[in-house]
Amino acid sequence: MSLEQQITDLAAGIVPVDEAAAAQARRRHDGLVKPPGSLGRVEQLGAQLAAIAGRCPPPVPAEPAVVVAVGDHGVHAQGITPWPQEITAAMVGVFCEGRAAVNAIAATVGARVAVLDVGVAGEVARHPRVRRSRVRDGTADLSQGPAMTRAQAARAVLAGAGLAEELVSSGVDLLVTGEMGIANTTAAACLIAAFTGASPAAVTGPGAGAGAEMLARKTALVTAALARHAPDPADPIGVLAAVGGLEHAALAGVILSGAADRLPVVLDGVSAAASALAATALCPPAPGYLVAGHLSTEPGASVALDHLNLRPLLDLGLRLGEGTGALLAIPILTAAARLLTDMAPIADLR
Amino acid sequence: MSLEQQITDLAAGIVPVDEAAAAQARRRHDGLVKPPGSLGRVEQLGAQLAAIAGRCPPPVPAEPAVVVAVGDHGVHAQGITPWPQEITAAMVGVFCEGRAAVNAIAATVGARVAVLDVGVAGEVARHPRVRRSRVRDGTADLSQGPAMTRAQAARAVLAGAGLAEELVSSGVDLLVTGEMGIANTTAAACLIAAFTGASPAAVTGPGAGAGAEMLARKTALVTAALARHAPDPADPIGVLAAVGGLEHAALAGVILSGAADRLPVVLDGVSAAASALAATALCPPAPGYLVAGHLSTEPGASVALDHLNLRPLLDLGLRLGEGTGALLAIPILTAAARLLTDMAPIADLR
Repeated sequence: MSLEQQITDLAAGIVPVDEAAAAQARRRHDGLVKPPGSLGRVEQLGAQLAAIAGRCPPPVPAEPAVVVAVGDHGVHAQGITPWPQEITAAMVGVFCEGRAAVNAIAATVGARVAVLDVGVAGEVARHPRVRRSRVRDGTADLSQGPAMTRAQAARAVLAGAGLAEELVSSGVDLLVTGEMGIANTTAAACLIAAFTGASPAAVTGPGAGAGAEMLARKTALVTAALARHAPDPADPIGVLAAVGGLEHAALAGVILSGAADRLPVVLDGVSAAASALAATALCPPAPGYLVAGHLSTEPGASVALDHLNLRPLLDLGLRLGEGTGALLAIPILTAAARLLTDMAPIADLR
Repeated sequence: MSLEQQITDLAAGIVPVDEAAAAQARRRHDGLVKPPGSLGRVEQLGAQLAAIAGRCPPPVPAEPAVVVAVGDHGVHAQGITPWPQEITAAMVGVFCEGRAAVNAIAATVGARVAVLDVGVAGEVARHPRVRRSRVRDGTADLSQGPAMTRAQAARAVLAGAGLAEELVSSGVDLLVTGEMGIANTTAAACLIAAFTGASPAAVTGPGAGAGAEMLARKTALVTAALARHAPDPADPIGVLAAVGGLEHAALAGVILSGAADRLPVVLDGVSAAASALAATALCPPAPGYLVAGHLSTEPGASVALDHLNLRPLLDLGLRLGEGTGALLAIPILTAAARLLTDMAPIADLR
């Protein structure tokens, strides 16, 4: 079976979320010991979790894991970020040592950290936390030609799906998208413009620290890349191959795998949102399984989340990635499920 | 020593937060393994935690507790809430059974729940989770005369401070304000108008479910009460006695006690914000120790937090109280401290 056919089959196995279970959760909330609606978005989130699981009350997430997909980008050569490419591989080392931001926040919320080398350009340490599924040593320069072949994009999607599946087999019941890859906000901007039709200026931001001049170059590059490749949003593998990153493809796979297992998938920032657009193009019911953990300051994130009709839980001015903002939202999901399980009916008041 | 003198002494022992430690935290963040500033408000929160503790990195909160102060309100007789007064005492029973919203969320974030009966009107169950410090069986009707005497207001402040002190002695290192009391948003609106000078219409909201007609009556009542009592914001005990609730006074005591112990105090909704205004009038450095956990939909909350120059961490449409919104913010505080402790310096990257 071809790689793309495997993805098609994975997507075909995803059922729409269960609206009847959501309605049941809303009714249940209206009968709990509090004024109806007084828990606001936490009640809505509880209903979504019921819809995802197909039952009410929904299971309380107990074993979250963040997949940190890591890749390099040939477009780095165009001077669209102040950071050297070597930082990508070096950060894998920091993730392994447990000394990155994602580790500190994952420890706070009780989440596992799984690192997926799907396309780092340099050597990375061997470590039990790192899954080595490298498809290629970084993408090609998307400003000069396709970032990768269709087969490579498909392989990266399947690498993400495979790691997610393995985590779920070992007990994980909530997936979080994380990523690292110097220059990856350029690819994310291309993906978001391609899938939403928004202008490059609306989706391109400073990323990890581009100044005004660099940002202008980055926006011009995104504009030129879209003109050159004219990616077709109805062909998501083609879009990923033309202008995506290996980590974006992998996270699309994580999303599809989580949805196939009827688990919530919490999105982090702009790269995760770009991946969610790809996953949704592959599988229209996918957004039902997605929770936007936070609103990144990177402008493409808002554009993508609006397009997906997802409203972020947190808005704390984060723009780091790694999964950090999404991890901070996990206790809100856990509480949303737990309220539906633990609270007394108001009829019990006496 | 008079009760009011005890409060004055407590307030006098509170030192301003340590701005040098905050500056040290900001410098430290700029040297950690991420783009400077990329963790947004979580970095600012880390600096505040350092300022509160007077050291960098700040201690990682490990034993949070929510004080749920409970009281009844004579103004209930004026028909400004659709809920019967008996709900207040009944909810104490639910808190004890662990089946209220506050219990579910506290369990999610690992917080203790301590219930303070500072002024319930009816019988409440004896239970190890309930501290019985009842000052009176509910307040008097603030629309007809003072809600309580100055001595009673002072006793309620000291009851809150005493319970907080006891929790801290037993290991608690982060305090959360919670409350329950049918009709208490009317008293909160009076307090917020009195301390900020805002108009009654700007601070009075539907609370736990007043419709348009009831809200109009509630706003008119707040207007008349302020005209009748003309409370002096420079005399916070006088303001609490005239138009406050026993739970508002108690939470002001929790805030002062936490600040005196150099611990962070996380505010919940509109009642907590009203208490914070009282605590700040008693002790101007108090807001340095306060974190606004979330933005309640009740309009007085925004007015009070703006006046205190506090920006809420979460905005999830909550209006339940009990401490629920503040508890949801705890993992963000824990992460803010942990990042400063756990993350590698960027100089270690190689």
